[in-house]
Amino acid sequence: MPKAIEELTALIAELPGLGPRQARRIVQYLLRAQPSYKKKLIERIEALSEHIAQCTRCYRYDEMAQNKLCSLCTNENRDATTLMVVEKDVDVEGVEASGIYKGQYFVLGTLMPLTETRKTAQAPRTTLLKERATEKGLREIILAFATTPEGDYTARELKTELETAARGANITILGRGLSLGAEIEYADRETLRNALQNRRAEF
Amino acid sequence: MPKAIEELTALIAELPGLGPRQARRIVQYLLRAQPSYKKKLIERIEALSEHIAQCTRCYRYDEMAQNKLCSLCTNENRDATTLMVVEKDVDVEGVEASGIYKGQYFVLGTLMPLTETRKTAQAPRTTLLKERATEKGLREIILAFATTPEGDYTARELKTELETAARGANITILGRGLSLGAEIEYADRETLRNALQNRRAEF
Amino acid sequence: MPKAIEELTALIAELPGLGPRQARRIVQYLLRAQPSYKKKLIERIEALSEHIAQCTRCYRYDEMAQNKLCSLCTNENRDATTLMVVEKDVDVEGVEASGIYKGQYFVLGTLMPLTETRKTAQAPRTTLLKERATEKGLREIILAFATTPEGDYTARELKTELETAARGANITILGRGLSLGAEIEYADRETLRNALQNRRAEF
Amino acid sequence: MPKAIEELTALIAELPGLGPRQARRIVQYLLRAQPSYKKKLIERIEALSEHIAQCTRCYRYDEMAQNKLCSLCTNENRDATTLMVVEKDVDVEGVEASGIYKGQYFVLGTLMPLTETRKTAQAPRTTLLKERATEKGLREIILAFATTPEGDYTARELKTELETAARGANITILGRGLSLGAEIEYADRETLRNALQNRRAEF
Repeated sequence: MPKAIEELTALIAELPGLGPRQARRIVQYLLRAQPSYKKKLIERIEALSEHIAQCTRCYRYDEMAQNKLCSLCTNENRDATTLMVVEKDVDVEGVEASGIYKGQYFVLGTLMPLTETRKTAQAPRTTLLKERATEKGLREIILAFATTPEGDYTARELKTELETAARGANITILGRGLSLGAEIEYADRETLRNALQNRRAEF
Repeated sequence: MPKAIEELTALIAELPGLGPRQARRIVQYLLRAQPSYKKKLIERIEALSEHIAQCTRCYRYDEMAQNKLCSLCTNENRDATTLMVVEKDVDVEGVEASGIYKGQYFVLGTLMPLTETRKTAQAPRTTLLKERATEKGLREIILAFATTPEGDYTARELKTELETAARGANITILGRGLSLGAEIEYADRETLRNALQNRRAEF
Repeated sequence: MPKAIEELTALIAELPGLGPRQARRIVQYLLRAQPSYKKKLIERIEALSEHIAQCTRCYRYDEMAQNKLCSLCTNENRDATTLMVVEKDVDVEGVEASGIYKGQYFVLGTLMPLTETRKTAQAPRTTLLKERATEKGLREIILAFATTPEGDYTARELKTELETAARGANITILGRGLSLGAEIEYADRETLRNALQNRRAEF
Repeated sequence: MPKAIEELTALIAELPGLGPRQARRIVQYLLRAQPSYKKKLIERIEALSEHIAQCTRCYRYDEMAQNKLCSLCTNENRDATTLMVVEKDVDVEGVEASGIYKGQYFVLGTLMPLTETRKTAQAPRTTLLKERATEKGLREIILAFATTPEGDYTARELKTELETAARGANITILGRGLSLGAEIEYADRETLRNALQNRRAEF
C-alpha cells in the first residue's frame, strides 16, 4: 500500500467506531472524491477549532455566545434554579431533543470508575461542580447518569460531596421503572422493584 | 425425506420460535436419542394434561392445590388486598422470581388490539375481571402490562371498565422511568419525561 | 414452577438449539394446545422409532426399503461405481436436494478430531468404510467433508487408510474455489489460491 | 446543534458506511482531539491528492513510479503474459496480499448492471480494456469478478467483447467450488455442482 494511503488510513482508523477495513473504504472514497468535497472537509475541520470552544460554565463544546459562555448558559429564559449534571455532551443533546427540561446543565466529562480507590476516582470536574453548587438560588441538582453500576456509584459519591456544598438545594436522581416498550416477562428484578414502588393512579 | 420424519418435522415446526431447519435438527436428535429419553418425553407431555390445569380464580396454568385453585390463590400468606392484572402466565413467573410482590394475580390472557373497535376489542376475561374487582377487601388493582401502545390502551380501557365495579380500590399502573442499564444519550423522549417526573431525593 | 412443568421444560431444554427460555415458551404453548395436537405429537415421536431405522449399508436413518436397507441403497437406478463419504445425514439431504449426484453414500458419523492421537482419532466407522471400499466395481470414492481443519484432516487420514483397501478406485475430494456470492476483496488466501489454480476457459 | 458542528457532521455522514449517529461521535472526538491530530489529518488528506494518482495503464490509484504508471505496472519482475481484470482497487490489494499471483492487473471500475440494456451497460473502461487486450505477448486474461449475477454477466459480456480483440490469449474465470470453512449441509446447489465437477485426486 502506498505510504500516503497507509498513513491516512492509520489516522482515520483512530476515529471512534472505525476499524482498519472501514478506514480503507473511506480512503478509497476520498481518492475518488471531488476536490471540492476534500476542500470543504478540510475547511470544516479547521472551522471546528475556530468556532467551537468549551463553555467555561457547563463545560459543553458549543459556539460561544459571549464571554466564553455557550448558548444555553447565556439563555436567560432557562430556569436558573435547576441544574442537571450529565456525563457527556451528547446527553445534553438527548435531553434537549426531548424538549422536557428547561434548566441548566453541567457536563461532568466522565463517570467515576468502580475499580479505583475513592480518592483517585474523583471525576476531574468534581471540584468545579462543588463550586457551581454553592451558587445562590439553586434549588435542585439532578444527577442524570446512566443507570449502570458506574452511574449509580458516581451519583452516590457526588451526593456526599455536594450535600455540604449545596446547602439549600435538593439532590435528586432520575426516576426508575419500566422504559418505553418494556415487557413484564423480561423486566429485570431491579426494574420491576422500581416500577412497583413508583406505581401511580393517574394515567 | 421419509414420511415419518417429514410429519414429525412439520409438527415440531409449529412450536413457537422453531423454524423448519431447527425442527429438522431436533428430529435428527430424536432419531439418535436413547429410547429412555423418548419415553420420558412422551410421559411428561401426557403428564402435563393430567397434572396441570387452569386456575378458576387467576386463570394461570398450575398444579391445582384444591377446588380447582392454584397454589398462589390458595396461599393464605399472600396479601388479599392487592390484585395484579397481567397479560400472561410468564409475567406472573417474572414477578414471582423477583420476590417483590406478595399479593394476588389475575391473568388477562391477551391485550386489547388497537385495530379493533372498542366493543370487539374487549379482552375475553374482562367480565371475569370485573366480577373479581367487586370482591370486598380489595384496596388496589395494579394493571401491570407491557409499556407498549397495546398495553397502555388495555390499561386505559380496563380503568374505565373497573372504576365503577371496583368501588373501594385504587387502580394503578407500574412506574415508568429509566430501566436498569439505560443511557441518557439513547433514552427515548417518553422515558426521559417519565424519569424527570419521577425523580427522587432518596438514593 | 409446578413439577410437571419444570420436568418437561428440563427435558425440552436438552433438545439441540433450545435454551431454558425457549423451552418454557414451548411448554406454555403445549399447555394451551389442542389435545389433538399433543396426541399427534406423541404418536409421531413413537412412529419415529417404529418406522425409521439406520441403514446397514450407508448408515443413514431412513425408512427401510428391504433387508434393513434404505431407499437410496436399494435404488437400482443409482450409479454403483461412485461412493460419496459424508459426515452426517443432513449432508446426504443437502446433496440430494441439489440433484447433481446419482451415486452411493456412506455416512461416517463424525469427523476425526485434531486433538487426539492418530490411533484413537479413527472415526468409529472407518473399519466399516474400509470393508465397503473393497467392493468390486467401485471406481471412485469422493470424500465430501466440510473444508475445515477437521474435514481436511479426516480426508487425508481416510485416504491413507483406503488406498490399499480400495485398490481399483480413485479417491477424490470436492473442488475448492469461490463459492456462490463470493467477493474477491474478502476472499481468504486459501480460497483465492484454489480459485486461481482451478480457473477455467469454459463459461 | 451549533452550525460548525452540524456542517462537519453532515459532511462526515457522506463517507461510506457512516450514518448520522457515528458522524456525531466522530465530530465529538475531533472537538476533543489534540490540535496535532487535526493538523496531521488535514495534511494527509491534502497529501492524498498530491502523491496519489490513477495509473494510466491499470487504472489503480497508487503512487506513480514513472510516466504516470504505478509500482505494479512498472515492476519488470512481474509476468507480462497474464492479465487479471478486477472490479476495484481493493480487489488488487486482496490478491496481492495472498501473494499467489505475479501477473498484470486491469481495474474495470464497476461491474455491468443487469437492469440496463446491453449497449448502455458497458463498463466505462471496456474500450480501454479491449485496447489493452490487443498487446502482443498476452497469453491469458483472467476475469476475476465476484461470483454474483452482476459479476457473471460482466464476465460473459467481456468475453464476447474480448474474443476478437485478444486473438492469441485465453480468457478464463476463477475456479468455483467450496470456499474455506464451507459445510456440505449448507452449501448451495450451484457451489455443490461446481465442487463435484472440479473434484480432484491430489490432496
